[in-house]
Amino acid sequence: MTETIRVELAGRGYDVRVGRGLLDGAGAEIAPLLKRPRLAVVADAAVAGLHWTRLRDGLLAGGVESELITVPPGEGSKSFAELERLCGRLLDLGLDRGDAIAAFGGGVVGDLAGLAAAIYKRGVDFIQIPTTLLAQVDSSVGGKTAIDTQHGKNLIGAFHQPRLVLADTAVLATLPARELRAGLAEVIKAALIEDADLFAALERDAAAVLALQPGPLAAAVARSVRIKAAIVAEDEHETGGRRALLNLGHTFGHALEAEAGYEGLLHGEAVALGCALAFRFSAAQGLCDPSDGRRLEALLASAE
Amino acid sequence: MTETIRVELAGRGYDVRVGRGLLDGAGAEIAPLLKRPRLAVVADAAVAGLHWTRLRDGLLAGGVESELITVPPGEGSKSFAELERLCGRLLDLGLDRGDAIAAFGGGVVGDLAGLAAAIYKRGVDFIQIPTTLLAQVDSSVGGKTAIDTQHGKNLIGAFHQPRLVLADTAVLATLPARELRAGLAEVIKAALIEDADLFAALERDAAAVLALQPGPLAAAVARSVRIKAAIVAEDEHETGGRRALLNLGHTFGHALEAEAGYEGLLHGEAVALGCALAFRFSAAQGLCDPSDGRRLEALLASAE
Repeated sequence: MTETIRVELAGRGYDVRVGRGLLDGAGAEIAPLLKRPRLAVVADAAVAGLHWTRLRDGLLAGGVESELITVPPGEGSKSFAELERLCGRLLDLGLDRGDAIAAFGGGVVGDLAGLAAAIYKRGVDFIQIPTTLLAQVDSSVGGKTAIDTQHGKNLIGAFHQPRLVLADTAVLATLPARELRAGLAEVIKAALIEDADLFAALERDAAAVLALQPGPLAAAVARSVRIKAAIVAEDEHETGGRRALLNLGHTFGHALEAEAGYEGLLHGEAVALGCALAFRFSAAQGLCDPSDGRRLEALLASAE
Repeated sequence: MTETIRVELAGRGYDVRVGRGLLDGAGAEIAPLLKRPRLAVVADAAVAGLHWTRLRDGLLAGGVESELITVPPGEGSKSFAELERLCGRLLDLGLDRGDAIAAFGGGVVGDLAGLAAAIYKRGVDFIQIPTTLLAQVDSSVGGKTAIDTQHGKNLIGAFHQPRLVLADTAVLATLPARELRAGLAEVIKAALIEDADLFAALERDAAAVLALQPGPLAAAVARSVRIKAAIVAEDEHETGGRRALLNLGHTFGHALEAEAGYEGLLHGEAVALGCALAFRFSAAQGLCDPSDGRRLEALLASAE
């Protein structure tokens, strides 16, 4: 069962496909978007070790040749040095303005490869194939790309929307449990923003999602994407204020990340703590009922 | 006498202002575009030495505070290393998403600062204050920004349109004669593309333009900008083919630049030679009358 969520943007709308086993059909999904049947795939080295053969074969089955470029895992790859190296590799491959780049990995690879796609020959097509829960529910959708500098995270980047997002929930089976839990925090954040039913479903199903039961997992991913897609469609460049809703928990979260070091606390963990703190702060200011925060903290605790 | 040429782009159109002494009124021109009265100015170090005080005072007279960031002159500054350094300096200054960056210099500074503006916090406003004839008639208009890599020129970049272009023809008085002649080649290129009257005027006035006589100089700059503005408005991202007209003479020109080394041959010189070669090649193919090429070469020779 594959679910399709459309991100509606004037002239540049795109589909997010969520389902088990999408890698095997990647070529058939992607080929219609390509001017020539060739794709540069920028992959997290650890993800490539686990899943590259499957993606390569899935692309070939649809007639798409691919070239693999690996990037070291970890936030450290979101740097000018790695961006320059990646652009050099793409130039070595002779990639043209009409060609496309895919990101295969989590948020780090998506952010880095997306920025490379935004500035390579002044912009080429970009495809997201996210392999972490966090990237599937959040960072692969919406077109934000970036690298970090010594001044902080995501300070240099571009809005560069993908042409397609392929979220294969089967690859989550190899994701470390800690990263799965961190990704679930972004699902909970999405529910807090505007889906009380999803929040209630998570109170019932969080354990099933973390156990990767196909039904609850696919529902959690697809519903989170749906919330994000609607907000991005309304405020693509975060100018109106509505997109800022997606930053729920990020004010405290970014401070915690900066303090803990970006490798010490996963982004999703920081967002979870940040949401909890935001509710406590709001309750202290008399802006929400303390019981809301307690309910959130109970759900977050069940996902720990 | 200041002339205004409008670059018509849906929702993001902008003015190119051409006139003597525009630096002195820069603050009044720019202030209405700013969210807070503060501007980061990225300048060619040699240009800053000659004209910074005047621009700074012109900005202040309109209530705009400025911060100067200098970049070494020459094509070598269009590098990842310089881009990273520049972004770091902008972050040091605490520039926000609502602030703006100005480029003050020739094509190199415009390309570098424009790309920085495109990716700084995913894009901030950008103002061009071109100080070479080539930048005033060509590179400051149209939104192309880029850096070079060892693979070639302008391979990494973005389309990022300025909010305003201020072309003060008075600053051309300090431009080396060789650069002035090289800039005139782009004026001749613009005339070749679609202004036979401008071409005829140049056959009469090339010497007067090179002598910086205000009337012929302002007319040459404004008419070149008008031609470029019309083409950019029709094909902003060079997807339709019409914008490719602006690359007249660039196929041979780029090859000559690559062969001569980017510091050995000025871009305008390469374009001049490239246009002459393009006409010879076309004549050899029977695609144009050889007398057209001879007329062009006579004009180019008069501008040598």
